[in-house]
Amino acid sequence: MKVIKTISEMVAWSREIHRAGKTIGFVPTMGYLHEGHLSLIRRAKALCDFTVVSIYVNPTQFAPHEDLARYPRDFERDEQLCRSAATDVIFYPETREIYQPDHFTFVGTEKMTGKLCGLSRPHHFRGVTTIVAKLFNIVQPDCAVFGQKDAQQALIIKKMVSDLNFPVQIDVAPIVREEDGLAMSSRNKFLDSKQRQEAASIYQTLQYVAAQYRKEKPDFNQLKKEAANFLNNRAECQIDYIEFLDAENLEPPAADRPVLMAVAVYFGQTRLIDNIVLS
Amino acid sequence: MKVIKTISEMVAWSREIHRAGKTIGFVPTMGYLHEGHLSLIRRAKALCDFTVVSIYVNPTQFAPHEDLARYPRDFERDEQLCRSAATDVIFYPETREIYQPDHFTFVGTEKMTGKLCGLSRPHHFRGVTTIVAKLFNIVQPDCAVFGQKDAQQALIIKKMVSDLNFPVQIDVAPIVREEDGLAMSSRNKFLDSKQRQEAASIYQTLQYVAAQYRKEKPDFNQLKKEAANFLNNRAECQIDYIEFLDAENLEPPAADRPVLMAVAVYFGQTRLIDNIVLS
Repeated sequence: MKVIKTISEMVAWSREIHRAGKTIGFVPTMGYLHEGHLSLIRRAKALCDFTVVSIYVNPTQFAPHEDLARYPRDFERDEQLCRSAATDVIFYPETREIYQPDHFTFVGTEKMTGKLCGLSRPHHFRGVTTIVAKLFNIVQPDCAVFGQKDAQQALIIKKMVSDLNFPVQIDVAPIVREEDGLAMSSRNKFLDSKQRQEAASIYQTLQYVAAQYRKEKPDFNQLKKEAANFLNNRAECQIDYIEFLDAENLEPPAADRPVLMAVAVYFGQTRLIDNIVLS
Repeated sequence: MKVIKTISEMVAWSREIHRAGKTIGFVPTMGYLHEGHLSLIRRAKALCDFTVVSIYVNPTQFAPHEDLARYPRDFERDEQLCRSAATDVIFYPETREIYQPDHFTFVGTEKMTGKLCGLSRPHHFRGVTTIVAKLFNIVQPDCAVFGQKDAQQALIIKKMVSDLNFPVQIDVAPIVREEDGLAMSSRNKFLDSKQRQEAASIYQTLQYVAAQYRKEKPDFNQLKKEAANFLNNRAECQIDYIEFLDAENLEPPAADRPVLMAVAVYFGQTRLIDNIVLS
């Protein structure tokens, strides 16, 4: 396994792979890897000849008051995990390599960004689409794998790829959960033991609503209230949002189309997200 | 020479060229080609193994009141000219191929766009960067050639390529002029014979200011006034702007750095631009 730190070396490696007629699968991450990331790496390996994992905590997707500085990092552990998953290359650049001091070009996917996480994090997705566009241009992948845990992100990336004609196939992998149902996330490590225990109720809430949804004609306002009550009765948390949207375009839900139920919840300072597709 | 109309065929052609270890030079145009475009094609041919010219009048860079509908088109003539310049591929897509009805991803290069042509055409450059990003992803060129006539556009594209890490070398070709000095432009055909004659005074104004600039310590406010007087005395036209900016970053001019003198002028409905680098 190679660790590449510069753009020029990454570009050269990818060019050589393509010259040889081989394909590149790509998993962009912010590091602090867990089983969820490893499932993405395994999918990339199944789809393409070579696999690149990027590890880069992208500053442009954090607002000044957010947790960029305290976002967890552990490169040595990440390196071991990537090796265990038979990754070919880790792309591990520093910020001065990625953003010039006078960087001011951004990619924006309007309409899909001003809802769900985009409401409380207004510049977040502009940062995400910009870094993903940059990484696609550097790594030149044939396919890239994203996690359904970040459902809005995955839809926005798909839309960006389609609108800007990136020659990259996007694969979205199912959410990987802890035994009690909590979606795996690098931010779970910030939970204290009581929060960690209560955080399992996020998934229970999704399951509860999914069962309700199958039973009766959905009244989303009612379901939202029930979900909030269900969650608040089980956990000391602050609900950022519970939303029901079209699972493919994030527009209001329409009859006979799959519905995304998406949730964001604060446990103390730690913001967790999760979702389920109802159909 | 091949004429390719679909994205999938264009992508496949480019992939094959790269598989063969060859390079692609790209000249994006809006058609109605003239000697200026042909000079770009010749440069692309000198830089790369194969040359692709795109002919596409991009709607997202026109405002509703602008001249999208009347922008001149003549594909048969363009085809002949491309053939005469030994172009390998014309990429000639229709708008329904390029923009999906729900397209809403845009690339924006802030700071450089809110001045010069961006003042009277506020969404123009967002349209330009977006279509160029799309065309780069479709054509996958190794180098792309732009004309210095659109100086602001060339600088913005360079900045986009650098900020988003497009693996494309950008080449900027000098302005090609008619015998009387008028910069070649597809829009020149809209000038009536009196306007056409008087339009030569744009270049005379640039030359006049360049001579003044060499003579004395530059006072740009004074030069701007003199340029406006010089031009108004020779032509019945409406000045949109006469500006002096840093020739590399479009910031206010700084000592010991090349200065771009850029001009936009209306002759009737027809807006012409031109520029010169002072040093």
